[in-house]
This record gives sequence, C-alpha cells and structure tokens, in this order.
Amino acid sequence: MRILILGGDGYLGWPTAMRFSARGHEVSVVDNFSRRRRHTELSTASLTPIASLADRVEAWHEASGREIHAHVGSIEDFGFLDSVIAETLPDAIVHYGEQPSAPYSMRSREAAVETQYTNVIGTLNLLFAIRDRVPDCHLVKLGTMGEYGTPNIDIEEGFIEIEHKGRRDTLPFPKLPGSLYHLSKVHDSYNIHFACRIWGLRATDLNQGVVYGVETEETANDERLVTRFDYDEYFGTVLNRFCVQAVIGHPLTVYGEGGQTRGFLNIRDTLQCVELAVGNPAELGEFRVFNQFTEQFSVAELGELVRRSAAELGIEVEVRNYPNPRIEAEHHYYNATNTKLRDLGLEPHLLGEELVRSLLGVIERHRDRVIERAILPRTHWKPGELVAELGGSR
Amino acid sequence: MRILILGGDGYLGWPTAMRFSARGHEVSVVDNFSRRRRHTELSTASLTPIASLADRVEAWHEASGREIHAHVGSIEDFGFLDSVIAETLPDAIVHYGEQPSAPYSMRSREAAVETQYTNVIGTLNLLFAIRDRVPDCHLVKLGTMGEYGTPNIDIEEGFIEIEHKGRRDTLPFPKLPGSLYHLSKVHDSYNIHFACRIWGLRATDLNQGVVYGVETEETANDERLVTRFDYDEYFGTVLNRFCVQAVIGHPLTVYGEGGQTRGFLNIRDTLQCVELAVGNPAELGEFRVFNQFTEQFSVAELGELVRRSAAELGIEVEVRNYPNPRIEAEHHYYNATNTKLRDLGLEPHLLGEELVRSLLGVIERHRDRVIERAILPRTHWKPGELVAELGGSR
Repeated sequence: MRILILGGDGYLGWPTAMRFSARGHEVSVVDNFSRRRRHTELSTASLTPIASLADRVEAWHEASGREIHAHVGSIEDFGFLDSVIAETLPDAIVHYGEQPSAPYSMRSREAAVETQYTNVIGTLNLLFAIRDRVPDCHLVKLGTMGEYGTPNIDIEEGFIEIEHKGRRDTLPFPKLPGSLYHLSKVHDSYNIHFACRIWGLRATDLNQGVVYGVETEETANDERLVTRFDYDEYFGTVLNRFCVQAVIGHPLTVYGEGGQTRGFLNIRDTLQCVELAVGNPAELGEFRVFNQFTEQFSVAELGELVRRSAAELGIEVEVRNYPNPRIEAEHHYYNATNTKLRDLGLEPHLLGEELVRSLLGVIERHRDRVIERAILPRTHWKPGELVAELGGSR
Repeated sequence: MRILILGGDGYLGWPTAMRFSARGHEVSVVDNFSRRRRHTELSTASLTPIASLADRVEAWHEASGREIHAHVGSIEDFGFLDSVIAETLPDAIVHYGEQPSAPYSMRSREAAVETQYTNVIGTLNLLFAIRDRVPDCHLVKLGTMGEYGTPNIDIEEGFIEIEHKGRRDTLPFPKLPGSLYHLSKVHDSYNIHFACRIWGLRATDLNQGVVYGVETEETANDERLVTRFDYDEYFGTVLNRFCVQAVIGHPLTVYGEGGQTRGFLNIRDTLQCVELAVGNPAELGEFRVFNQFTEQFSVAELGELVRRSAAELGIEVEVRNYPNPRIEAEHHYYNATNTKLRDLGLEPHLLGEELVRSLLGVIERHRDRVIERAILPRTHWKPGELVAELGGSR
C-alpha cells in the first residue's frame, strides 16, 4: 500500500513510518517541524537526542534497505499538501499532523488560535485534497479520548444510541472537551464525519488515550532511529513526565488530588492500533471511531506505580500534590469502552513495574539532558488564579 | 446598557442596533462589510437598496436623535476587536459577525476555509477579549437550528438528559450539522461552552431558525434605514427567495421533494428574542442555549403558502421540484423544543398569507432590481453530481 504519514517526524509519527516501511509498504511522510520549532521557542528539548529527518531517513535506509520519502511543509498550506497527495496518491493517510498539547493551547490567545487554526483548517484542507485527488483513500485520524471529557455515563466509541421521549436514534457521543486543544479535535471529528456523510469519504477516528514509552521494534535498530521523548509541561505526557521526575529526584507533580482517571496505552500499542486500522479500512462513506487505549488509571495510581517501581531500583521518590493548573474534575466516574480495536486483534502491552523500570533505565542514560526548568507547570487554565498558589510549592 | 453588535451592518444586525438604540441603550456596531464584498464578488445585491453604514448612522440620528457608534474592521483581527472592546466596555455583545451561508461555505475549499476561519477564529478572539477585558459581559451569540440536523428524536434546547446503562447525565445535545457553515457554528458552540465552563464567562447561544421578512419598527422610519433583503442562492433564505421568485414569475425552486422541515421566524421576532436574551442575562459561568424559532414548516408547505398568497393578488405561481443541490433528508422526523424564549415572554408573529402578501408587495416595489441569474442554485454539496441533472431544469 501507499501510505502517507502526516506529522511523520513526531513522537508517534516517526515510529509509525518505520513500522509501515518495515512491513513493505511505500511510505511518505509530511512534517513542518513544528514540534522542533516550538521546543526551540520554549528552550526545551526531547530527552532522547534525535536525528534530523534527513538523517533518520538515511539511517532507516541503511538499517532496512527501504526508502521513506520526506516532504517538508505544512498542511495549512493547501498548495503544498495537495501537491504531495497528487504525487503520492496514498491508499491510506495517517494523520498525526496537529498541535497535540492541551497546555500549549491554553498558554495564550495566540497559541489557542494557532492550535485551532493548524488542526481545524489543516484537516479541512486534507479533506478537500482527499475528496478531489484520492476519494477512495482511507483517512486514519488521531483524535483523543479527551474529546469526551468525564461524563457521568459510560463512554462509547464515537456514537451512542439514545432513547428519548419514546423515540430512538444513534447519534454522535456528546463531548465535553477539557481544553482548546481537545476542542480542536472535536471540531475535526465533526468535519471528518461530515465529509464521510456528504462526500462518501472513509475515515477512522482514533480517540487515543495518553501514550507512554519510548521504544518500538524499529527505534531500537540504530541510535539515529530513536524517537523523541518529551517530559516538559507542554509536550510531556503524564507517565513519561513522572519517570523523568523520579530519575532526577524531583517530586512527582500530581496535579490536584490525582483522582483524574484517563485511558492509557503503550507506544507499541499505538503502532499496533494504527496498523489494525489501516489494515482493516472503513467502508466508503463510513466514519468509524475507535477508542484507542488499553487500560484506565488515575493520576494518583500512576504516581504510586512510579514510586514503587523506582523503589525497586533503590530510587526514593516523593509523590506530591500540586495545585491543579487545569480546571477539571479530580474525582469522577470514568468507564470508557474500547472493544473495537481488540475485536480487530489488538494484543495490549499492559503497564507494570517492569515497563516503568525499563523506562527509568532509558531516562537514566540521558539524565544529563534533563532541563529541570521545564518540569513545573506554568500554564494554567484560568490565568491569574494559580500563580500565587504555585509560589508556595516551588 | 452598553451594547456591542458584531455584524451590525447586516440583515439582522442593523435592525438590532436600531432597536437597542431606540430603547435608550448605548449601541456600537462592528462590521467589516464582508456581505457587501461577497455580493460584489458574486455580481449580486440586496433587493432593497441599502444605504452605506455611515449614511445609516446619520439617518438614524436624524430619525431618532440617537447615536450608533460604528467601528469598521474584522473580528479575525484581534488587535482591532480587542481595542473596540476595551474602548466600548460592553455589558452585552450580540454576535452576528459571521459568514452565515451554508451554500456559500460549500462553494469551494477557499470558501469553506474562509467560513470556518472567520467564524471559529473570530469567535475565539472574541472569547479571549471578553475574558481579559469585560469578564462580566453577556455574550449573545447567533447559532443556528441547523447545528442539530434532523435526528430521529425530539430536539431539545442545547442539552439532553441521557440515561445509559443505568447511569444518567445531562450533556450537550448531539449534533448532525448539514454543511461546513453549520459545522462552524457547532464548533463555536463548543468553544463558547468551554469558555463558560472554564473561565466563568456568561453566554446565550441562540440557535436560530430560518428568518423571513424585511421590515421592523425602526426600518420603516426612513428609506435610508431599510435593511438588506437577499434572495440569491447564497444569502437568500427560503421564504424570502420564494417570494422574489413569485413576483418575477420564476417557478418556486423547491429543492428535491420539499419534505425538509425546519424552524422559522419573522425578523421582528429575531429582534424580540435578542432583546429578551439581553434583558435576561445568563448567570456568570452559564452557557444557555435557546432554540429561536416560532413555527415549523416543510419547504413544500412554504411553497404552497406562497402560491396561495400570490394567487390572492392575481399572481399565478408554479411550484417546481428541482434536483436538490444539498445532501439532506427530504422526509424525516422533526420536532424541536422552543419553550425557553416563550417562557421569557416571546410573543410570536406567526406566518400567514397576509404576511406573505405584504412581503410580495415590498418585493414588487423593487422588482426591477432583481438579478434573475442569481436565482438557481449552482453550488452543490457533492460536486460533479448535480451539474448534469440541473441542465434539464434550467
């Protein structure tokens, strides 16, 4: 198959590109290096030293004998995107090419507008390019479990059957997104659903949980093939952040009471899920939603898991409750369905102390690269309220 | 009160500005003349000859002795919008300042992007300006009944209580919008809801039905005060279009079988509803949704009403079914709740033959201005499918 990966230089995009290439597919990647640029602007960086995209492609060729084709540009630039799609004529497009951070989107008006512009308009451009160039192409779009928020009912996979006043319909699951980033993903879902309903496109929306881990089969081949690992307040996901904090002796930054429960998955399972979605495409006109996570944990449970796992390595870790920079429920019902990917054959790598210890080992190798300034949250959902509070904990 | 009207040069915005001014409020309007510009680009125009905004403001001063303050610029331009809000410090903002046409949004990728950019980013700018300048200000935002689509259950006002697997929650009503314009309004609703939940802003989302009519108390004072009346495929709403078609002897353009049922209201009731919303503000932190229409009709029923009303005036009208340029259900269940505005005191002007005859009379006075080329739909929801079909009916 011809597969195009948008955001193919990213944390998940680059390992995904190698995976499909390893399987013998013809892979092209698009990236505008926005993550690298934002890190430069924020004076932060990946914990793992990462090669340039050109070096990655070269190293992959040396390691595998296969070619990954790189296209540098932004999906907001329709002329660029359209020409890449016309040239590559993909059978499937895996779309990671978005601004993926909730706190980044809440930094400022400029960052909020940038996030919704990049994500919503970029995806809208993509839908038009698919419609007019490759209408049979299967769009595999990365969404987020955060689109649903924390409703007081079970979360279904994209749609819910509602009985109301004696009548019935199956409708899009109501959303309560928790940041301007999460909102952009909700907007995307609605736009893509529309393109499937009206234009007959086919799409799978992968509402992904929080990803952890750093290694995949392919990243281990050569150190130029490692993927990025972010631990800063903006781009670090919670378990990855906790592990870095444990290694450098920083208290684990549990926001608020830590009762926030979310779906999680190993980066290896992200690749598995995306492969399953691409290998089992949606029908023409179908908009499918898969909830892409393997287990649910509360933030406090993760803190405790990291503390226990580190203790086995002789590292003493303090779990500390910080004033929550986000506005979110800290105790809530949470039960999300995730059977569709399992039905397609997903075999989860579950989270345990061994995985955490292995992650701590990787981090230990790079501990001199940790920028401690980047650990504590400085962006708060409701400006003005947190600065004073946080002072006490710093 | 200090009231700011965004889109204050438009079909509804200008009459709204005069209404609040007449009631003694301090009124400012913002407009970037995008409607006038789009008409120029499309070689179309308002049926009614409309004065420039400066002439309107002057005429209103002569007629009423009151001042309306005009600010010319775009809400997409944050610096402009922010300075207007800082200067006017509104108690309420009535937000009509969006691209309001479904077919316009479906014309091309460029028009779709323009629509979602103007509407979503413009409104996002507005939310930040309110948060940082006038956090107590009440945002009254024009949404559309089209956000809901045509679900097979009763449509509630913004939220629905769902019982699911033995648990219960009240959640945003699921949406099935029918165009990229309607989607932009769904996105806005989600963003505004978030701003209320997280920042504690107050907002009323008026999910308006299809508006008809041209006269309000204030527009009748002076011919320089008349509001625009659009009848073209992009900006003309269905009943207004039918009335123009009746006057010029064009068959009424019922799209498809005409079973499409929607909520409708008189322009006079738009003003009443907006007054009721502004006069009874939402609480801080509250996101209220009112379904703003007074009656439901199918397109076929409206065609028949216009035919009957015209017949009374001796005008013979043909109702003709055209291939539907939209992708939409032509026979469907439709029952939408609209009790909240009635509970606040809305007294509807119901639609009848007399109203239609009066509208036909206004149109008759301007029939030499009708641009017949603008009548038939040329934008179709699924490009390529309709051109051949339409050929037969032209």
